[in-house]
Amino acid sequence: MLPHTLVSDERRAAAAAAATAPNGVPTPAPTPRIGLMLVGWGGNNGSTLTAALKAHAHQLTWRSADGVHTPNYLGSLTQASTVALGTKSTSHNEKVYVPMKDVLPMLDPKDLVIGGWDISGAPLANAMRRAAVLPWDLQRQVAEFLVDDAATDATSDGARAPLRPLAGIYDADYVALNQRERADHVLPFPGQPWLQMAQIRADIRGFKQKHALDRVIVLWTGNTERCVPLMVGVHDTPRAMFRAMQQNHAEIAPSVLYATAALLEDTPFINGSPQNTLLPGLQTLAQIRGVPLAGDDFKSGQTKLKSVLMDFLVSAGLKPVSLASYNHLGNNDGHNLSSTAQFRSKEVSKRGVVEDVRVAARENFDHAAGPDHIIVIKYMPAVGDSKRAIDEYVSDIFMGGKHTLTTYNVCEDSLLAVPLMIDLVVLMELFQRVKYQTVDADGFQPLHPIASLLSYMLKAPVVPARAAVVNALGPQRRALENILRACVGLQPVNELELENKAYRDF
Amino acid sequence: MLPHTLVSDERRAAAAAAATAPNGVPTPAPTPRIGLMLVGWGGNNGSTLTAALKAHAHQLTWRSADGVHTPNYLGSLTQASTVALGTKSTSHNEKVYVPMKDVLPMLDPKDLVIGGWDISGAPLANAMRRAAVLPWDLQRQVAEFLVDDAATDATSDGARAPLRPLAGIYDADYVALNQRERADHVLPFPGQPWLQMAQIRADIRGFKQKHALDRVIVLWTGNTERCVPLMVGVHDTPRAMFRAMQQNHAEIAPSVLYATAALLEDTPFINGSPQNTLLPGLQTLAQIRGVPLAGDDFKSGQTKLKSVLMDFLVSAGLKPVSLASYNHLGNNDGHNLSSTAQFRSKEVSKRGVVEDVRVAARENFDHAAGPDHIIVIKYMPAVGDSKRAIDEYVSDIFMGGKHTLTTYNVCEDSLLAVPLMIDLVVLMELFQRVKYQTVDADGFQPLHPIASLLSYMLKAPVVPARAAVVNALGPQRRALENILRACVGLQPVNELELENKAYRDF
Amino acid sequence: MLPHTLVSDERRAAAAAAATAPNGVPTPAPTPRIGLMLVGWGGNNGSTLTAALKAHAHQLTWRSADGVHTPNYLGSLTQASTVALGTKSTSHNEKVYVPMKDVLPMLDPKDLVIGGWDISGAPLANAMRRAAVLPWDLQRQVAEFLVDDAATDATSDGARAPLRPLAGIYDADYVALNQRERADHVLPFPGQPWLQMAQIRADIRGFKQKHALDRVIVLWTGNTERCVPLMVGVHDTPRAMFRAMQQNHAEIAPSVLYATAALLEDTPFINGSPQNTLLPGLQTLAQIRGVPLAGDDFKSGQTKLKSVLMDFLVSAGLKPVSLASYNHLGNNDGHNLSSTAQFRSKEVSKRGVVEDVRVAARENFDHAAGPDHIIVIKYMPAVGDSKRAIDEYVSDIFMGGKHTLTTYNVCEDSLLAVPLMIDLVVLMELFQRVKYQTVDADGFQPLHPIASLLSYMLKAPVVPARAAVVNALGPQRRALENILRACVGLQPVNELELENKAYRDF
Amino acid sequence: MLPHTLVSDERRAAAAAAATAPNGVPTPAPTPRIGLMLVGWGGNNGSTLTAALKAHAHQLTWRSADGVHTPNYLGSLTQASTVALGTKSTSHNEKVYVPMKDVLPMLDPKDLVIGGWDISGAPLANAMRRAAVLPWDLQRQVAEFLVDDAATDATSDGARAPLRPLAGIYDADYVALNQRERADHVLPFPGQPWLQMAQIRADIRGFKQKHALDRVIVLWTGNTERCVPLMVGVHDTPRAMFRAMQQNHAEIAPSVLYATAALLEDTPFINGSPQNTLLPGLQTLAQIRGVPLAGDDFKSGQTKLKSVLMDFLVSAGLKPVSLASYNHLGNNDGHNLSSTAQFRSKEVSKRGVVEDVRVAARENFDHAAGPDHIIVIKYMPAVGDSKRAIDEYVSDIFMGGKHTLTTYNVCEDSLLAVPLMIDLVVLMELFQRVKYQTVDADGFQPLHPIASLLSYMLKAPVVPARAAVVNALGPQRRALENILRACVGLQPVNELELENKAYRDF
Repeated sequence: MLPHTLVSDERRAAAAAAATAPNGVPTPAPTPRIGLMLVGWGGNNGSTLTAALKAHAHQLTWRSADGVHTPNYLGSLTQASTVALGTKSTSHNEKVYVPMKDVLPMLDPKDLVIGGWDISGAPLANAMRRAAVLPWDLQRQVAEFLVDDAATDATSDGARAPLRPLAGIYDADYVALNQRERADHVLPFPGQPWLQMAQIRADIRGFKQKHALDRVIVLWTGNTERCVPLMVGVHDTPRAMFRAMQQNHAEIAPSVLYATAALLEDTPFINGSPQNTLLPGLQTLAQIRGVPLAGDDFKSGQTKLKSVLMDFLVSAGLKPVSLASYNHLGNNDGHNLSSTAQFRSKEVSKRGVVEDVRVAARENFDHAAGPDHIIVIKYMPAVGDSKRAIDEYVSDIFMGGKHTLTTYNVCEDSLLAVPLMIDLVVLMELFQRVKYQTVDADGFQPLHPIASLLSYMLKAPVVPARAAVVNALGPQRRALENILRACVGLQPVNELELENKAYRDF
Repeated sequence: MLPHTLVSDERRAAAAAAATAPNGVPTPAPTPRIGLMLVGWGGNNGSTLTAALKAHAHQLTWRSADGVHTPNYLGSLTQASTVALGTKSTSHNEKVYVPMKDVLPMLDPKDLVIGGWDISGAPLANAMRRAAVLPWDLQRQVAEFLVDDAATDATSDGARAPLRPLAGIYDADYVALNQRERADHVLPFPGQPWLQMAQIRADIRGFKQKHALDRVIVLWTGNTERCVPLMVGVHDTPRAMFRAMQQNHAEIAPSVLYATAALLEDTPFINGSPQNTLLPGLQTLAQIRGVPLAGDDFKSGQTKLKSVLMDFLVSAGLKPVSLASYNHLGNNDGHNLSSTAQFRSKEVSKRGVVEDVRVAARENFDHAAGPDHIIVIKYMPAVGDSKRAIDEYVSDIFMGGKHTLTTYNVCEDSLLAVPLMIDLVVLMELFQRVKYQTVDADGFQPLHPIASLLSYMLKAPVVPARAAVVNALGPQRRALENILRACVGLQPVNELELENKAYRDF
Repeated sequence: MLPHTLVSDERRAAAAAAATAPNGVPTPAPTPRIGLMLVGWGGNNGSTLTAALKAHAHQLTWRSADGVHTPNYLGSLTQASTVALGTKSTSHNEKVYVPMKDVLPMLDPKDLVIGGWDISGAPLANAMRRAAVLPWDLQRQVAEFLVDDAATDATSDGARAPLRPLAGIYDADYVALNQRERADHVLPFPGQPWLQMAQIRADIRGFKQKHALDRVIVLWTGNTERCVPLMVGVHDTPRAMFRAMQQNHAEIAPSVLYATAALLEDTPFINGSPQNTLLPGLQTLAQIRGVPLAGDDFKSGQTKLKSVLMDFLVSAGLKPVSLASYNHLGNNDGHNLSSTAQFRSKEVSKRGVVEDVRVAARENFDHAAGPDHIIVIKYMPAVGDSKRAIDEYVSDIFMGGKHTLTTYNVCEDSLLAVPLMIDLVVLMELFQRVKYQTVDADGFQPLHPIASLLSYMLKAPVVPARAAVVNALGPQRRALENILRACVGLQPVNELELENKAYRDF
Repeated sequence: MLPHTLVSDERRAAAAAAATAPNGVPTPAPTPRIGLMLVGWGGNNGSTLTAALKAHAHQLTWRSADGVHTPNYLGSLTQASTVALGTKSTSHNEKVYVPMKDVLPMLDPKDLVIGGWDISGAPLANAMRRAAVLPWDLQRQVAEFLVDDAATDATSDGARAPLRPLAGIYDADYVALNQRERADHVLPFPGQPWLQMAQIRADIRGFKQKHALDRVIVLWTGNTERCVPLMVGVHDTPRAMFRAMQQNHAEIAPSVLYATAALLEDTPFINGSPQNTLLPGLQTLAQIRGVPLAGDDFKSGQTKLKSVLMDFLVSAGLKPVSLASYNHLGNNDGHNLSSTAQFRSKEVSKRGVVEDVRVAARENFDHAAGPDHIIVIKYMPAVGDSKRAIDEYVSDIFMGGKHTLTTYNVCEDSLLAVPLMIDLVVLMELFQRVKYQTVDADGFQPLHPIASLLSYMLKAPVVPARAAVVNALGPQRRALENILRACVGLQPVNELELENKAYRDF
């Protein structure tokens, strides 16, 4: 049975009520202030997230050709989807749906204090314009709010300083060559990872202190790096990693430095890109320190759809024989991925999605080999952030027939990713407060630091050593729903509805 | 807890083992012989089902341009999909998958004895050719097996008579005018439903006797009829229906006559078309007699996909604002649906699929109205049975953005429908043998006769009076899995995998 | 050989040069001022045209998410496409391309004085906002220029009056019922067509006088009307039409009144909608008065593409067997077309496009029947002006194979239509100035008043009585190019390039 | 003015009539027998061509699921498309269409004697089965006709020997590594191109003699080779090429050997793959000997469509900004192209298609850079010969709008290519018989040996040195039509139809 402790700002009343629930544990008096530090803050995702939350906080409205718009959280599981908690007492056939964010007290996204690093020194307002994601009329208005609430300019007039990223770690060996032109704002100590990591630690402490934060979460939304070849004596233990950093080993990626720094500062780390940042040594470090880790790679777009459709086909007893997956996009993510090594990281992360459907079918039917599966990502500047994803699924069907399903998906890349970033942060914060007790033990335990419950938002979920990876979206969401239900004392959903199957009921 | 009683032919060993399970009940000694009577036997679905099962029974192989083919059951949940029963004892992260048909003893489809009615008198071999569904080289070989195993020709040489449908009920008021040219083999007594119904009852009895069957299932795979306007005193009770039949009331559809006849012969009835055959009076009759009913409308193609994708979008917190659904096909189903009244029946059945996702979102967000939803079905002779379905989903996303997903689906209409027909029959037969007991009662009860567990295969599931309709495919499949699990004494799946979430596990 | 007379405003220099060309005819001294009166001025097309030309005139720039934009004429044949006039003298393999607008002196679109009628009285600035077509940041700026340059407000401060349409003829019998709510600004004399027509004539004269115009062109961009059944004694001669109007005959459509009024005022009329406005009596009237007529129906989107693709398939020797054509849109055009009678007009206009490819193939191959062809248009408010068109072409190919081509086309309806409106007006004005002389005649003649040269821009081109309709886009464009070439004394293009085929050249 | 001489077998009567035409030249008495030698005879194209022509010759019919089929020539310009020769004398608005093959006497494809080379020694019947292109019921029947009409087996029973390719030149350096497993039937003298070329010459002479042929055409339908880097002293003159061959130079591709052998045997050579076989030295050799050459790369599928659609967009004044082109296929062509060097040849050939539309727009508008253009070809075994091509065109339109057109094309690769092979051979044979005379010269001349008139069938047309490449499909077809018209004394088409533009006509 899972009790929980808990939560954020203006939900104090709710928290108080929750504290009296059967499994409740008293709420800590002051609501925690949470900070979010983004690696790649000035990128499309980072600048969009920041500006959008400011728009929410200041209740901005804006116009486009088709009328007036207000800020929303569409695309966020926690903020914009519901959970069925039961049926109405007055009618067995009407379910009661509650927004997921109201099932338990959760962080309100607009209370987040946001900061971070970038290898481009552009102030956030400029970064937002360069991203070309948000509507112009919103960009126009929100720019004035992209200032540092905790600082004043050098100038005497008391104006707020524009928000600017801290200098980021740049290692040309890990990202595409074409990123070089952006890299105008980089951390010193090139080739000296240990010193760089120390600086990142100092940055985290400084951010926490400056904004009087209770806790911070670090989220990588930077460029996809090339993967590192797993090396014994370098990546397998915390100690080995530390030594490798001190010895300026070449196979220490910048993302690993951010993650290590975060853990050493007792700060959860989430990897939103596909490279293999969450190395064995890092996972061990997380477990030793009891600080959560999650990754890899935001599952914002086509991969999410693919996992749904492959599950659909195989669950229906069809046999997919080929899956061609073409993508093109024109933002900086696409630019970086046009380089082979970085694409390889991405390809691996996107490929896994069909793996468990393949396994599901393997032993009993002749689906052993899985479908032919090709993945293409191309950089096409003209489409900007408006990513195009085209997939074709060919399946063998009854008696030698063929079934062909083709999907054409126009995805606003950052507008789909940002709500996932919000969910990752909100749920990461929540699950740090959830504890559980097993029947044969006394005392409550926190959840395992490898936060596999966040898999719904991640393309290539990292899970605890002996657990199976679940890629299918349905089960991932159900796991989330059922743990939230458990926290409020409800049984998991099983869909049986036996009360409606009774014959005598007639 | 759900115990079950037993099963088909060559699975006696399995059944015996099952009988010793904790909740088992002794298996009846002789395996039942099951008959299947199709309304619309000579149509594309009926002739394809018949020929395919013969191909299985006689292990035929055939060639097409791309090589040699053998019979399969792809597209059938029971025959070609798996259920995860647990994880391997040797490794927590490897699941054990079992074909659904092996979880419990079930009917083997090729043991079915098939018969039925049609308003076209073509022998099944001709019907199969007219359908133009199966590969020619299979058609060529299987024709000789489309003969009546229980009859000999009038001719002296002892050759088997070709399979031919019994004369069907034809009422021009219920199907499209264009069906008139097919109707060369119709039951007498036009306008006298009571007499027609009596003849159908006699046909069922005759079929059962001729083939020495234990039980029969009747499955409507005929033309979509127009819906009837629900009338008090005509359709609301069994008595009213009988009287209306005797008084030659015009609003008694042929499908209602088949269903009534089936129930009166203690034979389950399944409605594979969208018209409102399962009227209140008929449902009451089923409950009085304890004979199962299921319907409406095979969910073989695009509607299934739509339910998955709408669920995907709404579950992800997006807000679908429009859904355009275009279909064209060139088989006789399409020909019949080109008539307005029949299309109306279909449209209603296809529309429901978005209803529960709409409800899920309604109360908490401004999704109240649901998306604009248009449905078009056109008759296009040139594409034959190879139905084309094109859908476009437009959704509002984060901060005023739009997401557009378009699917193009080439579906072999009958090759997708036939495996569902097999599942409906296999599961209907199984659930007749499943009984359950509640904690506060003594003795086992059968399941409710309105077989809502078959919803996965049906576009517009009919459910018991006070139950909620579930259209989402995921929950429908989980309900099936969990009831099968319950029958063998396993807990329902909840996806929590708490054993992998334990921190101390480290 | 075709000489021409000439031209517009700031092109006087060019005109002077042209006047000395071998086939030139002296240029009239003052440049004509041209007015354009739109029927349906306040609709999406009318308001977009007006605002866009103001943006050009005032050189406005605007911002959207992806940067700064300047006005363009993309989509206009005359303003944004080129014609190859020959090859460079220095190199046989480099062609010389010239913008079509520079081949001959033509009207500059931004010199047009625009006015017209509408059944909705909204000022143009409001109409533009209601249309939701142009980017907001442009809407915001251009609004102040949507004022009447030739009038001042009643108010004393000398401000310009906002542009407002004249009251339009409204006859509920001709457009969809749903248009009633827009009809707040209608001409009096309901049911009295003769009086209404007289008012339209007065409106034209008034507009011409107020703006000191040399000539006016009337362009119908209003709602699609239902077609009228062609009646002898009503529609066949000018005299019959006049009498029918005087007798308040019900089968006189509003569009016919505008067209008649225009011709009687020596003003060309262009019909941009599909209804059969250009009745025989009207065509005769045009010929008697020597005033040009053109129609029907802007070919802005999918029909244009279909004519190209059908031509492609048939020209390649393939045999199209089916063409499914689905459209949905959410603007007022779509709303009006959701009514059956209006859709019927549209369907006829869209269907013709495959006719000449069918004829091309008919006599020699078994293509006699033409492909199955279905056309669907649906009203889907959520997509607004962003029309979706989805077509599927199935063709028989070599040795029993099939070829399937599917297109998905996202067309901004008004942004594609407006450039065609510009071309229709520019070319109509030009062709009024073109005259020709045949070898066996003396003196120059104007072109035939049925302006079939404008077919490229029209879905269902009306042509002179004995001429064949050409729907194929390639030949339509070539006809335009070759007449322009002829006007400047060049031979028509024949693609032979015999100079490059010579063997001795080696 | 173009006179012609002429042609084939059963068209003698037609020929005689044609001979009396104004520009006619007396027909040579005996009809020529034409042989076709394919390089890559056993591939999908070669085996399909051979079997299909046998099916035509023997008037085979076959069945598939949807009924009985007879041989056709759909997809062939000459055999299955028409040309409009004029209008009916009885009615100006009815055009007279004539099959292209009847405009002039042309070779009948089924009279061709077919032979050739392959690096796989499989008899043609096996090759046809391996190709998996033709329907099984046709494969079954036609196999017995895939025998050598001019040879008898070694066996005494007089049975015909099965058709088998001659051994082909195999150089692993030029094709993908994966072709090695097919290469079981290769010419000796590896690394000695001069000897190999001599053998090919002997093969051509032998084939001609064995079948008593008047003329032979050699057509490369083999694997795409990598391109060679153009080298002075190796590829620039015939002499250099001969010397390079004698010196066993590594940059002499097998295709160059076949082409050289063909020219030296006075045999036209056509290159159906994209590599740069038609090197400058080879072109010079063709001109010296007066033997025609044509290439490169069959334009059977998506590239043809792209050239049409790009032309459509640019001609309409729109501005394409991106073109994403994705292809996957599962035949041996796809297998070979999965190798980088071979793909590079293909990419170049496919890319050129947008070049002339770019040039058309360049000088006058800001289209200078042309659209972003990506091309992907992937090997996907599961789809076999049924190639999938998906293209997305994004264009800038009026006032900052966007237009997006997406096409999904299911192309039977060989069934579309084979009719083009037929056209290339038929027209190549025809144009060898066409001669012309210019006004200032006496005597007739043959056409230039670089056969640019065949461009319609070729992706990357090779043209005479100083001529411009025309990629647009419309002009390519018009050039063909107009030269055929010229040969029968008709004026070229100019689309003006001035007779319908006359005002006085009224």
